[in-house]
Amino acid sequence: MDPDAVARAFVEHYYRTFDTNRAGLAGLYQDSSMLSFEGEKIQGAAAITAKLTGLQFQQCQHNISTIDCQTSGPAGGVIVFVSGSLQLAGEHHALKFSQMFHLIPTPQGSFYVLNDIFRLNYA
Amino acid sequence: MDPDAVARAFVEHYYRTFDTNRAGLAGLYQDSSMLSFEGEKIQGAAAITAKLTGLQFQQCQHNISTIDCQTSGPAGGVIVFVSGSLQLAGEHHALKFSQMFHLIPTPQGSFYVLNDIFRLNYA
Repeated sequence: MDPDAVARAFVEHYYRTFDTNRAGLAGLYQDSSMLSFEGEKIQGAAAITAKLTGLQFQQCQHNISTIDCQTSGPAGGVIVFVSGSLQLAGEHHALKFSQMFHLIPTPQGSFYVLNDIFRLNYA
Repeated sequence: MDPDAVARAFVEHYYRTFDTNRAGLAGLYQDSSMLSFEGEKIQGAAAITAKLTGLQFQQCQHNISTIDCQTSGPAGGVIVFVSGSLQLAGEHHALKFSQMFHLIPTPQGSFYVLNDIFRLNYA
């Protein structure tokens, strides 16, 4: 496994799905998955998907600035740390954010998101 | 284990040590530990400590804005996500940063840092 390749492919897939078909993110989470969104803790694929699809803005575009990744131990996990900006439809200014994901391999040879922490970078 | 209590105690200890006795951070890392510092990857307690103690600035003060934490799986790990600002001696403006740590329990009942990713938040 090349963790850098995993991280790049995941980031591209995750934000493209978020921006074009947000409900499609459901397949990336499992019941044990956790999301901390601006300090709010949510657990489980269903609740996380409900949170993400229920966000006030409907149209958005993520632009990624940096991707860092590391392996997270012998079990083959990958930690991905992203910085970027979020452009909402109708807004002049993009919102800067930082987000981390802890990806865990599945028996099917893919990965799911166990940990997901999102924070806007307040100026 | 209360992961929130672990995260708060770790963050307080880490940044106080960074600001007052940076070489003391060595005890928090092991040979398997990884640091990504502004995109530069460093592995192992000795190399990480050399990087942190060799940073250009000698005096600094971290101020923490947010702490998010989640458990990272059945092995008792804790993921800590921090945002804050870094004030360097003699500089007017503080630098905003985001940083994540993956803490792994030790047989002695403490934790070490397996994953550490640091990024300044560029405006």
